[in-house]
Amino acid sequence: MLTLYWAPNTCALAAHIALEQAGADYQAVRVDFGREQQRSPEYLRVNPKGRVPALVTDRGVLTETPAILLYICQSHPEAGMAPLDDAFELARMNAFNSYLCSTVHVAHAHRMRGYRWADDPQAIAAMQKKVPQSVGDCFDLIERELLQGPWVLGQRYGVSDIYLFTLARWLEGDGVDPERFPRVAEHRRRMAESPIVSRIVAAQLSPA
Amino acid sequence: MLTLYWAPNTCALAAHIALEQAGADYQAVRVDFGREQQRSPEYLRVNPKGRVPALVTDRGVLTETPAILLYICQSHPEAGMAPLDDAFELARMNAFNSYLCSTVHVAHAHRMRGYRWADDPQAIAAMQKKVPQSVGDCFDLIERELLQGPWVLGQRYGVSDIYLFTLARWLEGDGVDPERFPRVAEHRRRMAESPIVSRIVAAQLSPA
Repeated sequence: MLTLYWAPNTCALAAHIALEQAGADYQAVRVDFGREQQRSPEYLRVNPKGRVPALVTDRGVLTETPAILLYICQSHPEAGMAPLDDAFELARMNAFNSYLCSTVHVAHAHRMRGYRWADDPQAIAAMQKKVPQSVGDCFDLIERELLQGPWVLGQRYGVSDIYLFTLARWLEGDGVDPERFPRVAEHRRRMAESPIVSRIVAAQLSPA
Repeated sequence: MLTLYWAPNTCALAAHIALEQAGADYQAVRVDFGREQQRSPEYLRVNPKGRVPALVTDRGVLTETPAILLYICQSHPEAGMAPLDDAFELARMNAFNSYLCSTVHVAHAHRMRGYRWADDPQAIAAMQKKVPQSVGDCFDLIERELLQGPWVLGQRYGVSDIYLFTLARWLEGDGVDPERFPRVAEHRRRMAESPIVSRIVAAQLSPA
């Protein structure tokens, strides 16, 4: 049995949807960011980074969305959610996921988590101000170059689609009009219509 | 034949060392950041992100260090640089590499690339000021929790060691005393003594 630690409106949604689509045997445990539970001694024993997602397996704890997504794919190969038999295609998948993690998510994080990189309130405000541009630039690259269509990697659906959907849901909050990116917007609508995706989104939105 | 695009003092050193240690058939092509070659139309056709590393294969271009490192491991399994036969251990490796890419490298980037996240010069200065603390906090976590010893994943050497070595070389420049982290510092010394590592480091330092 796997245990996923998650919080609403975080990138942990990607791992949550992936576990459900893989048909994994898992439970989902909500971490209450409002009460700073992610910094509690109990949670720091699970994940010393104080972040979500964390996936507890019978061999230890895994963190970092790109690593967790590939692990779910490799441990549930029958779900067909990654090109496991093709090192080049798998590298394309990992490159896309790594870009979402280290560039897109990071650009977004400067809106609410600027304190990670500066102490001065005016600097934090200056970071927030640039988020629409920096996040918009990321999605412009995704729209033009990275999203092959109809799915991220082309004909084959997989965890990169789940991860893109997760981060594309933040566009309005980041001050970016999703309709600037018609292909991303259409992908997001298609993902949202999936019964599994909409069930997990609804479950995460329900009261704690 | 693979082609690695790299520039001095960037994280492309990790892919460069990994290719050499894997015994890959590759050439290394230097991108001149001083002349902004990474933003030239020619280079943007290779990598629209305008960054290094980029690895050109006969099937297309790969970017993002964690993805490139795993690809080198999977396409050169005889080099034994990743736990390819164990999905959990591989996920530990990918989680470590993803942390370096999306948290450690990002903290470091606020020293020289603050313009990515703010326009105000005072905000950029405020980001630079916090780098010793944010990078130091990352290496504190690596020292206490992530570096198993003697290698990142324990007894088995691999690409995570190369990647950690690459980023640990930036500590002094980021205003962090490496001796605050004795285990990381000892790991860095051990890596630097490797003939292959020292050869690639020297090659990257030589004039263009």
